[in-house]
Amino acid sequence: MRIGVLGTGMVGRTIAASLAKLDHEVMVGSRDPAATLARDQPDGYHNPPFRAWHEQHPGVKLGTFAEAAAHGEVLVNATAGEHSLDALGQAGEANLGGKLLLDVANPLDFSHGMPPSLAVCNTDSLGERIQRAFPAAKVVKALNTMTAQVMVDPGQLAGGDHHAFVCGDDHDAKAQAIELLTGWFGWRNVLDLGDITAARATEMVLPIWLRLLGALETPMFNLKVVT
Amino acid sequence: MRIGVLGTGMVGRTIAASLAKLDHEVMVGSRDPAATLARDQPDGYHNPPFRAWHEQHPGVKLGTFAEAAAHGEVLVNATAGEHSLDALGQAGEANLGGKLLLDVANPLDFSHGMPPSLAVCNTDSLGERIQRAFPAAKVVKALNTMTAQVMVDPGQLAGGDHHAFVCGDDHDAKAQAIELLTGWFGWRNVLDLGDITAARATEMVLPIWLRLLGALETPMFNLKVVT
Repeated sequence: MRIGVLGTGMVGRTIAASLAKLDHEVMVGSRDPAATLARDQPDGYHNPPFRAWHEQHPGVKLGTFAEAAAHGEVLVNATAGEHSLDALGQAGEANLGGKLLLDVANPLDFSHGMPPSLAVCNTDSLGERIQRAFPAAKVVKALNTMTAQVMVDPGQLAGGDHHAFVCGDDHDAKAQAIELLTGWFGWRNVLDLGDITAARATEMVLPIWLRLLGALETPMFNLKVVT
Repeated sequence: MRIGVLGTGMVGRTIAASLAKLDHEVMVGSRDPAATLARDQPDGYHNPPFRAWHEQHPGVKLGTFAEAAAHGEVLVNATAGEHSLDALGQAGEANLGGKLLLDVANPLDFSHGMPPSLAVCNTDSLGERIQRAFPAAKVVKALNTMTAQVMVDPGQLAGGDHHAFVCGDDHDAKAQAIELLTGWFGWRNVLDLGDITAARATEMVLPIWLRLLGALETPMFNLKVVT
């Protein structure tokens, strides 16, 4: 399958590497691919330069947001939440239309210090903003409640006995998303929380995720809904 | 132990009944005890009249917020979040001072329809507002991420293999809270998320709790942090 992953940070890289390993044709997109490749210092999130990662993953193509979006039959928004709407605008509505857009981003706002707050929450969400801005895209919010390494390999925690959540307005796209999470990464427990307004709920998990990160001193955890 | 439970709704009743069963001296507090007893219709949250419950739990005393707060060596804020600050004001700072105040309330805002949003979140919380308004109280936010029946009997879900969270500024009060949760209700897994600002995080769990309530069609669930 051709997959476009928007964003070259740790989340985008982790997802892209995992999908490429499954022999999918993956293109990651950035604002300015030449600049992305030229960078030789860690980025603002302390990720090593993209170039070093890319040398180890030569099967993953790099393009602009528009090229990656045009490439993909399915798209993943793995940009930093503060840049997501802009990045998707550069991707271009025509390249998003009719496609499943897995939105794994979170609207973290670092401007008030650590831990970050949310730039939007409670009565709106990044997922909804994306769906409103690009009505032809089939936005499914997914996997945004865990660290990237858990997104792509749930089995490493308690044999996969924990939960991912999806929400979105398009029923078929959600069904496809659940199928892909299972097929790609081995997710066994995916809960459908409803329409895209439920993105408020999953994005608002981030504050407790960040506190748990502090308490547990590792990002390698996830939530399980126990009944 | 003498315990004051502020609030006569389902959460206050469930906690009071559970503590009375353990032979603690429990007084629940309401704004106007005579009116609370006179009511013969379900309240705004569809709870049956307090009187019917009270007849089945004669060991639990009923008093004003001030009387219940004066009575308790340890206090529980089980009022509806929108009324908590007012109720605690009526309880009186002198009756709160130096005492552990377990704050199990959530700042749910039903004014925008269902599911409710939060009246405060992200950069502030009800727990923090209570601590700021009553600096002499030792506020520990706890148990607000689950339904009342799970608060008092975690063992009924997966043998108790799931989590409660506490946060607060007073280290000793937090240690006492954890001890009480274990001794009273059998909590085995209590995670300390830090100072009272972490109440933002646990209160912001409510949106996903409400979506899970819709998806699972039962409130009998809780979150487990899987590592």
